[in-house]
Amino acid sequence: MTPGLFDEILARGGAREAVDDTAWLTALLDVEAALAGATADAGGLDADVAASIATACRPERFDIAALAVEAANAGNPVVPLVAALRELVRAHAGDEAAAAVHRGATSQDVVDTASALVTRRALAVVVGDLTAAADAAAGLAREHRDRAAAGRTLLQQAAPVTVGLRAAGWANGLDGAVAALQSWRPAVQLGGAVGTLAAFAGRGRAERAALARRLDLDEPPLPWHTERGRVAELAGVLGCAGAAIGSVATDLVLLAQTEVGEVREDVPGRGGSSTLPHKRNPVGAVSARAAAIAVPGLVASLLTAASGHEYERAAGSWHAEWRPTSELLRTVGSGATWLADSLGHLVLEPARVAASLDVTGGLLLAENVTTTLRGRVDDPKGLVTTAASTSLDEGRPFADVLADALAGTDVTRAEIDAALDPAAHVGEALELVDDFLATRTAAARTAAARTSAVDPEEHP
Amino acid sequence: MTPGLFDEILARGGAREAVDDTAWLTALLDVEAALAGATADAGGLDADVAASIATACRPERFDIAALAVEAANAGNPVVPLVAALRELVRAHAGDEAAAAVHRGATSQDVVDTASALVTRRALAVVVGDLTAAADAAAGLAREHRDRAAAGRTLLQQAAPVTVGLRAAGWANGLDGAVAALQSWRPAVQLGGAVGTLAAFAGRGRAERAALARRLDLDEPPLPWHTERGRVAELAGVLGCAGAAIGSVATDLVLLAQTEVGEVREDVPGRGGSSTLPHKRNPVGAVSARAAAIAVPGLVASLLTAASGHEYERAAGSWHAEWRPTSELLRTVGSGATWLADSLGHLVLEPARVAASLDVTGGLLLAENVTTTLRGRVDDPKGLVTTAASTSLDEGRPFADVLADALAGTDVTRAEIDAALDPAAHVGEALELVDDFLATRTAAARTAAARTSAVDPEEHP
Amino acid sequence: MTPGLFDEILARGGAREAVDDTAWLTALLDVEAALAGATADAGGLDADVAASIATACRPERFDIAALAVEAANAGNPVVPLVAALRELVRAHAGDEAAAAVHRGATSQDVVDTASALVTRRALAVVVGDLTAAADAAAGLAREHRDRAAAGRTLLQQAAPVTVGLRAAGWANGLDGAVAALQSWRPAVQLGGAVGTLAAFAGRGRAERAALARRLDLDEPPLPWHTERGRVAELAGVLGCAGAAIGSVATDLVLLAQTEVGEVREDVPGRGGSSTLPHKRNPVGAVSARAAAIAVPGLVASLLTAASGHEYERAAGSWHAEWRPTSELLRTVGSGATWLADSLGHLVLEPARVAASLDVTGGLLLAENVTTTLRGRVDDPKGLVTTAASTSLDEGRPFADVLADALAGTDVTRAEIDAALDPAAHVGEALELVDDFLATRTAAARTAAARTSAVDPEEHP
Amino acid sequence: MTPGLFDEILARGGAREAVDDTAWLTALLDVEAALAGATADAGGLDADVAASIATACRPERFDIAALAVEAANAGNPVVPLVAALRELVRAHAGDEAAAAVHRGATSQDVVDTASALVTRRALAVVVGDLTAAADAAAGLAREHRDRAAAGRTLLQQAAPVTVGLRAAGWANGLDGAVAALQSWRPAVQLGGAVGTLAAFAGRGRAERAALARRLDLDEPPLPWHTERGRVAELAGVLGCAGAAIGSVATDLVLLAQTEVGEVREDVPGRGGSSTLPHKRNPVGAVSARAAAIAVPGLVASLLTAASGHEYERAAGSWHAEWRPTSELLRTVGSGATWLADSLGHLVLEPARVAASLDVTGGLLLAENVTTTLRGRVDDPKGLVTTAASTSLDEGRPFADVLADALAGTDVTRAEIDAALDPAAHVGEALELVDDFLATRTAAARTAAARTSAVDPEEHP
Repeated sequence: MTPGLFDEILARGGAREAVDDTAWLTALLDVEAALAGATADAGGLDADVAASIATACRPERFDIAALAVEAANAGNPVVPLVAALRELVRAHAGDEAAAAVHRGATSQDVVDTASALVTRRALAVVVGDLTAAADAAAGLAREHRDRAAAGRTLLQQAAPVTVGLRAAGWANGLDGAVAALQSWRPAVQLGGAVGTLAAFAGRGRAERAALARRLDLDEPPLPWHTERGRVAELAGVLGCAGAAIGSVATDLVLLAQTEVGEVREDVPGRGGSSTLPHKRNPVGAVSARAAAIAVPGLVASLLTAASGHEYERAAGSWHAEWRPTSELLRTVGSGATWLADSLGHLVLEPARVAASLDVTGGLLLAENVTTTLRGRVDDPKGLVTTAASTSLDEGRPFADVLADALAGTDVTRAEIDAALDPAAHVGEALELVDDFLATRTAAARTAAARTSAVDPEEHP
Repeated sequence: MTPGLFDEILARGGAREAVDDTAWLTALLDVEAALAGATADAGGLDADVAASIATACRPERFDIAALAVEAANAGNPVVPLVAALRELVRAHAGDEAAAAVHRGATSQDVVDTASALVTRRALAVVVGDLTAAADAAAGLAREHRDRAAAGRTLLQQAAPVTVGLRAAGWANGLDGAVAALQSWRPAVQLGGAVGTLAAFAGRGRAERAALARRLDLDEPPLPWHTERGRVAELAGVLGCAGAAIGSVATDLVLLAQTEVGEVREDVPGRGGSSTLPHKRNPVGAVSARAAAIAVPGLVASLLTAASGHEYERAAGSWHAEWRPTSELLRTVGSGATWLADSLGHLVLEPARVAASLDVTGGLLLAENVTTTLRGRVDDPKGLVTTAASTSLDEGRPFADVLADALAGTDVTRAEIDAALDPAAHVGEALELVDDFLATRTAAARTAAARTSAVDPEEHP
Repeated sequence: MTPGLFDEILARGGAREAVDDTAWLTALLDVEAALAGATADAGGLDADVAASIATACRPERFDIAALAVEAANAGNPVVPLVAALRELVRAHAGDEAAAAVHRGATSQDVVDTASALVTRRALAVVVGDLTAAADAAAGLAREHRDRAAAGRTLLQQAAPVTVGLRAAGWANGLDGAVAALQSWRPAVQLGGAVGTLAAFAGRGRAERAALARRLDLDEPPLPWHTERGRVAELAGVLGCAGAAIGSVATDLVLLAQTEVGEVREDVPGRGGSSTLPHKRNPVGAVSARAAAIAVPGLVASLLTAASGHEYERAAGSWHAEWRPTSELLRTVGSGATWLADSLGHLVLEPARVAASLDVTGGLLLAENVTTTLRGRVDDPKGLVTTAASTSLDEGRPFADVLADALAGTDVTRAEIDAALDPAAHVGEALELVDDFLATRTAAARTAAARTSAVDPEEHP
Repeated sequence: MTPGLFDEILARGGAREAVDDTAWLTALLDVEAALAGATADAGGLDADVAASIATACRPERFDIAALAVEAANAGNPVVPLVAALRELVRAHAGDEAAAAVHRGATSQDVVDTASALVTRRALAVVVGDLTAAADAAAGLAREHRDRAAAGRTLLQQAAPVTVGLRAAGWANGLDGAVAALQSWRPAVQLGGAVGTLAAFAGRGRAERAALARRLDLDEPPLPWHTERGRVAELAGVLGCAGAAIGSVATDLVLLAQTEVGEVREDVPGRGGSSTLPHKRNPVGAVSARAAAIAVPGLVASLLTAASGHEYERAAGSWHAEWRPTSELLRTVGSGATWLADSLGHLVLEPARVAASLDVTGGLLLAENVTTTLRGRVDDPKGLVTTAASTSLDEGRPFADVLADALAGTDVTRAEIDAALDPAAHVGEALELVDDFLATRTAAARTAAARTSAVDPEEHP
């Protein structure tokens, strides 16, 4: 489908198509085809008839707009879809085959199972994009493993960090989001009108097992028409992914500020301005943030929908799940795509990273000077505090003020400079990054294995 | 645009088209045309040139998908739209006219003002649908003004009400939602790149006033690029509308339950079942509920977006407003449409209403019996409580048990029956309804006046 | 602490105390004590000094209100807590011991680790309550394994189910929520001011490992000061629990309706009314619902907070996590407590269950009659449809109308009655329940093992 | 009440006490007292008896914890409160007076009316704090009316603004929030068990009018037990206030960044660090942000609660309103208090404001140079673009590069410098601010009038 006016900004990447109407229609038909096959597997239908049904389950044969209009009378799109499918099957394979379409199932069986398929396919895309973002962050961590940078708390410079440690933190968060998404298990739904499998002639559980096998979906112990734990869990893991994206994107937007300028996105033709030559809008990070901002509300919508399903099938809550499910997948997918784009094109500006460390003229490391002076002068903390005030008040470099204050002691300028060297005061940042990256290799292998599990259709 | 697969269920009615891509493109072009006109009004452009720009502002001349793709590089669709519009104008009216397109404005000026137009047009539709729903409810209140019905608290029968009072409550809630929506004031946005009107050659405020006049929008004192009170207010009033819809729809779904059956939706071809002849799904009320369930989360998304706009223009929050704005309008519109449909086709079943009142065999009115017996027997409350227990335990009508217990006193069966007559114990329900309906007539006149103010374009 | 005015309704059960100020203070001090111990474990402090610090870490020695006031100046309660703790330690163990308090750590290290402890303790309570609710539901499933009941879709009677199948669905949903809560892994936080462990003299990772060991918490690869995946995951699993509670509670409220009356809560002194003897408010289910309704919004608040942590430590988002974390635990805990109470006191009314099945006079099973008549009469579906209409229109029992219509055929009244026997048409409901309950036994063993893992402090 | 551990950070200011248990108990008793008075006003009770009831309505006579425990059995605190109040009245004034307590009313009448009182009182506090914040912002706008500053879009410097224009934008947003809060109208609730006023002996509407008059509350046409428009509107206006607070606080946190440093909060003893002398945490703005982050989710919780009230009184949704109502008021109040504190102590650093304007070496004004050169050199845009690139690449001041490039033309260095003077290129910023401040004076008068209307109890 062609993109909508805002889609390339707010619904970028492959997830959008993975949840569009064609994807849904395809999944609904996949379920009908697999259901016929499962009926045959369980001995309730000739394999030939099942095959003739499967043959008719091709999305291009159906008119989405017509289905949409009729769906409103039935309350869901499966009723008109089954009617249209039966007509197709009847024309090719006769009345008996037509009657076998959708046999025993209820509309929600098909929509819920199709939703599992749509979600699995979309998640595979999202996981791919998030993994690309995480890999790019890990690459930055490796490349800038020991580059000192200003660490900031409450947006105030606090002490030195390394670019590597910060980037490793990004990778770690994104890896966690990937793991959360991969932990979600899509399941088959089959219960019939009220979940008793009453219209399956005693073969209901066998058909359910066969259907799960054919679609490679989990087989739950009971119908889950109104037990929406899976839906709530999906909301939760997509919420996690949104949070991970939002935090990294926020850091990127802040680091790209004109006054900080430690990073920029380098994508030709994007984010620039002919009239403002210095302006380099970090379009990728900004758009990733826009996606992340929308996520918590969508999670709330989906959780509310999942919270009140009545009796055997719900009066509104079920319908209320459809749109936020697609919308969450699309939005998180957009954020993942943009973030992978941003991190993949990120240019680090070493000079600006170094300049940030100098902004406070060394005050960032005042505490280290105190430690260095301990036992060397009478009141190290007092001396340092006074020097810091003088430096701030007079706008003179902290090192110079200190050197003046320490004239006449045996503390050398070299010692002062060493105490003020950021790279010498990043604690165990290097080891933390090394450990993280080493562990990540194994985790990546596991993740790769999991990815193939998330979308077995892609890796048959 | 043709409806999407779920649209006739989840995005029913006119609001969907009022916020679709064509509507947005039209509104963006309306703003560009009015901006050129306003420039002329303020003396900055020949009226002829402005007219030639306006002539080019026709949505059918633009390719939405192409704009969408280019929008991603700029971060918003106005940049490519202005480029395309300039090409069109250049071809017809030359370079100077092309240069006058969008003069002085920033993209957000155009998107925000277009959003005001789109929202106003969509709100007019939503208000129309909500008003139809409210009118239908008020009609029920009038028709069933004095029909006694079982009143229920915590879903337990508690005491008699009238159908009229309940329906008046629905109308009142929907009227309130209409009033809330009508209280929202769309405003023009014009500030240029950072809100100073620096590129307007000193005519900025004059152009802003002219633009507001041309589009019949409020003129705010300052640019609101990052002051998003209007957006937050819109979220709030749409949240009110969703709540009103949800409460009425919930009542309808409950009243339509098989075991209650006091109402049903009577729409030929909808909600029925050939195999379950007794089943009459209240599709309208169910779909209205589905809409209402989605609203609070969307409100949260929009409020979050509106909560953190940085400096002169935001890095993500602004983009994050676009989708929930359209989605909220579409969803509330769907709920309003479905509810108007449901209430408009509602059939009240008098026999079932009466039957509900009999479910407790008169226990609903036990308190009245106590009042009646005061001064006539020794321990009225004790006698009534005992009789109620006997009635519950033995499954005998409360009136019969009471008659037995009162044998030998001067309390007649007729007195007992009168004390147990629901219609005689509905307090001031009739007067409340009468007062409400009388007041509503005046309010309706005011509302009609307000509606025309909400969309002046419709009533030139 | 004594309960607040609404607490026994909205914050019932043990979770409230598990997240109250005393619990938080205790956890903060547990972390400070363990941190001193870990410093000693890693060779940075005499064990005696660490022990003297631990001795001072007793919540009753601190004034919460005073800490609260000073917390505002620092932006968190750890700064004044450490100051007060140092004073205590100084008094008992001298300056050196006082200086060793909190050494190397930053406030967020302590708050985040304490939050892990508070959450683990509260989750243990919530899991206990949810498990009790699930066990009660499973008990109902076992007891009423084969009791036929009306199955309802969109609140319309659709086909027979068993009470057992519905209750098994409740148990399944609650089991899933328990599993989700148990999957959450609390972790230690230790990084120092900007996460580099710079003030730990090279022993940072060793101390972190020792701290994790002492508190039995996961040890993450990197500091997670601004990588809030754990927080987002907690929001997600609590959202799942809320959804599970809400769906079951909604069913209970509906089943307890006066017009349905299939269940009631039997708690002496609760929910009754002296003046309305028939009224039995299902206070437990109602209050569980009230809790569930609040959850999605709280999840959104927590996710939003977890979505935008800047740089090394956040400017507001971190603080914004504290209250919704406690509030979610308290609210979900309240819902779990009330639901366990409701299900634990639930009385099933067999006569009302049977009566519901009769409400449609057999129409619920019309489809089965069609199946029975196939091959026995000319147009079985037509005959049944006509009979159903007649039954509805004339208010006569469906069986009688059918008997009349089938007079002159060889279909006997006994056959008709058999086709209309709900218990004979519940499909594989019994097997589904049996399978579920059998599987659950194993799962319960696993869950028991997991519970002990969730709060190891309880099982030393 | 003494503050909780996190309260001075997350629930600062007067709103906390305005919604605490004592405030609620007081309001509940105010309603009971006024109800007795209203009964007398309507002729249903001796004024003396009403006065004796009012005398007993003193919060210090009731035990909140005991009420809390009993509330759980009844499902709300009014049932035990009325029982306790009757005992008190009986002791002083006899049985008849005791029987007159709460006559005709239902618990929800009292809770809803008390909620109106609590909310009005809390809103008065919030409005006061927001107004203080807005006034402080307006003061900054006036003081720095014409001070040029770097304007930023997407956190990239874009063009000059004035400090005055930005501060005026803050004031405007906060003024809007005040207006939104003041537009909310608290109303009396009186309907009896099912809203029919059945137990008021025909004096129901008269008592309702008297009650509204006594409490100075709006009198709605119908009971609103399940018509929760007022509640939804309250959620909406508090959402608006949160958004306004969040945007201003975000700007302050960004402006206080070490690398920007244009503002700082100057509160002795707060936000400083003895070891990091340069660090000045903007604790007020950070805490205001923390409040704003929580708001949208709370709004969603309250809207969800307000969206599904069943029949005459709801089964859970009503209870679900209580906590988010208090929590929203407390949280928005905290944000308002912190923001007023931050803006009230804000120190603007003129040197840093000027320094920011120099960060790009004049590139911020490149466009003006092009305008200046038009007609003076051959290809002004090309010349400027080349100079900008050279400046960026070589790190030389833009003005110097331009001067070199223009050597040999008649463009003087003074002309170049004039074109690069930010203060000369702020468009109509000064007029916008002047207009805004002038209009605001009138608005402030109106607001003052409105404030007195919001809490008439304060101005009798």
